[in-house]
Amino acid sequence: MDAKEKALAAHEAWGGKIEVIARCEVKTREDLSVAYTPGVAEPCLKIRDNIDDSYKYTRRHNLVAVITDGTAVLGLGDIGPEAGMPVMEGKCALFKAFADVDAFPLCVKSKDVDEIVRTIELISGSFGGINLEDISAPRCFEIERRLKEVCDIPIFHDDQHGTAVTCAAAMINACRLTGRKLEDIRLCVNGCGAAAISVTKFLMYLGVRNVIMCERFGIVCEGDERLNPAQADMARVTNRAHLTGTLEDAVRGADVFFGLSAPQVLTSDMVATMAPDPMVFAMANPVPEIWPEDAKKGGAAVVGTGRSDYPNQINNVLAFPGIFRGALDVRASDINEEMKMAAAYAIAHVIPDEELTSENIMPAAFDARVINAVAQAVAQAARDSGVARI
Amino acid sequence: MDAKEKALAAHEAWGGKIEVIARCEVKTREDLSVAYTPGVAEPCLKIRDNIDDSYKYTRRHNLVAVITDGTAVLGLGDIGPEAGMPVMEGKCALFKAFADVDAFPLCVKSKDVDEIVRTIELISGSFGGINLEDISAPRCFEIERRLKEVCDIPIFHDDQHGTAVTCAAAMINACRLTGRKLEDIRLCVNGCGAAAISVTKFLMYLGVRNVIMCERFGIVCEGDERLNPAQADMARVTNRAHLTGTLEDAVRGADVFFGLSAPQVLTSDMVATMAPDPMVFAMANPVPEIWPEDAKKGGAAVVGTGRSDYPNQINNVLAFPGIFRGALDVRASDINEEMKMAAAYAIAHVIPDEELTSENIMPAAFDARVINAVAQAVAQAARDSGVARI
Repeated sequence: MDAKEKALAAHEAWGGKIEVIARCEVKTREDLSVAYTPGVAEPCLKIRDNIDDSYKYTRRHNLVAVITDGTAVLGLGDIGPEAGMPVMEGKCALFKAFADVDAFPLCVKSKDVDEIVRTIELISGSFGGINLEDISAPRCFEIERRLKEVCDIPIFHDDQHGTAVTCAAAMINACRLTGRKLEDIRLCVNGCGAAAISVTKFLMYLGVRNVIMCERFGIVCEGDERLNPAQADMARVTNRAHLTGTLEDAVRGADVFFGLSAPQVLTSDMVATMAPDPMVFAMANPVPEIWPEDAKKGGAAVVGTGRSDYPNQINNVLAFPGIFRGALDVRASDINEEMKMAAAYAIAHVIPDEELTSENIMPAAFDARVINAVAQAVAQAARDSGVARI
Repeated sequence: MDAKEKALAAHEAWGGKIEVIARCEVKTREDLSVAYTPGVAEPCLKIRDNIDDSYKYTRRHNLVAVITDGTAVLGLGDIGPEAGMPVMEGKCALFKAFADVDAFPLCVKSKDVDEIVRTIELISGSFGGINLEDISAPRCFEIERRLKEVCDIPIFHDDQHGTAVTCAAAMINACRLTGRKLEDIRLCVNGCGAAAISVTKFLMYLGVRNVIMCERFGIVCEGDERLNPAQADMARVTNRAHLTGTLEDAVRGADVFFGLSAPQVLTSDMVATMAPDPMVFAMANPVPEIWPEDAKKGGAAVVGTGRSDYPNQINNVLAFPGIFRGALDVRASDINEEMKMAAAYAIAHVIPDEELTSENIMPAAFDARVINAVAQAVAQAARDSGVARI
């Protein structure tokens, strides 16, 4: 049985990767009279009088919805809402295993932004947070922005922000290792989709100033009519020298290459034109922008990928469980930039100076130190930034 | 600590009556590669090619949403969506405990019928069935009707149909006991709200022909301008003699009184005017239309209530778990009249002739024979009526 057949057989045997169980006994009349009628009327009335009590008397305090419309599932594209559900269920299983967060998978059978926003808004009173997943760009930006405006619970598009936080953690530690400061580096980002834009914005929030982004057609430059609105926004804050040209031109002299793009677009020769001791992050999955061996041939001092079979795996599972754990623990109304920054530094600093090497800039996916470090840092940042409600 | 304080303390200690757990292990890289990327792509692609495979590779085959808008919660009325959630969670706990159905509670923050229908339709691909709960009349009728049109999974408003099925089971056994046929009885229903209308319609589907309904203002009669549209519909199929008057007039000579109305509206003297050996079902809760002692004083041969501290409790928990278990087991596209009829007779016939007495016409809520009897009868009825898909 090959890996694909094994995955299918496992999914069929599981019969679903999540399950809803009862936390109360209902085996006797007495049980029923407490958990159901007539006893249940009491918590109902408390919540009627104070909606915040929904966090006290229902599961909401620990409950996150994992929601997709099925338009950008893994690298498979628009495969439909129901077909996105195995990924949503997997994500929910990870939430529970890593952070003891109850997460429930939902798919929305619409591609209309207004409908998706309204649907999620209307059910948001059932949850303590919303994790958006695998929604195509540029719709994902507007959906998240509008939901943040109308909901009083955290809205978090993991493909953007989970990726941004873990990529930032990698960058922070690569800078620690090579003695650079974020303020001073020259960053080349290849790709200008949702993840690339989110990573770039977040790295700039953390202090990176000198950025060039590249799309398939070349360097992203203000005024280029091929840019979509989100890319045009990025062109206004990056590439202030208005460079044009190809990826080859963009990487020349750069300290960092960050690929969130396509397989095999970077060569050893291109790495050799970068600044001394360059850092290369090749996130295309499963085949990265450049294989780590080839990046090192070109002189890379640090290489990270999304793959678990190479050192320095950059994996969202380091971020989203702890971010939601921390947000739920303080009943945060939002997951803001301060909380994401706290998460990135917390992931990075799980690795103490004495463990930091070019082969070990990222904690492993199953490093047990990560969850508490991230959750505590995020909760503290929520308090400090005024979005904690308890 | 009184009962109310005890219920509150229990709810706070539970921290929610449901929990979402993982059915797959995600403790190693290998686990992750099967349950999540890259393995998860395989079931996604199968479902993309055939949506029916969502029942094979995700939890959908066993998953029901329990949904309210919070407008008619218990007897508390319109207390708001979040405040309805303790009841929804309780219902979900019952689904799991009685039928091993995974049920997930959701509230919708809208009272607009169009919005509620569209919201539920758009998330329906995540579930194998929808249980509507505590939605006020007459909105509940339209919401259910329209959802049945647009969804290919069972839609079931328990306050209507669960009540109808259990009330019908009681009536079936009361007729068995007193040697009557449903076709021959004269039925007086007090109340003309959602539950009363649903019970009446269903009893007529089962064969009852002679029915008089009463509202607060008196006998429901065709042409009365005080009737709302749903009541006017009932006026066209009941009370064919166009009687007018009060409840007192309506019960005179009736074989059965069915109260789905208000406390203490029926007296012993009124029961004494009914046909010989009358049957009295007083469902108002917690204080019934007449106390069983008083009904017997008036000559009632059989008395049933919603209360667990009297014989013959008529409790929805006898119906909804087995109905959904049966529907899910054959992947039914609907819960139709045939399936509800099968459920009513299955509940009734859990009590064999030799156990049937005036104090024992209904199985107890925790009678372990009920779930399988109902589930099997419902599954068979789904097959026979052409709505089973496996």
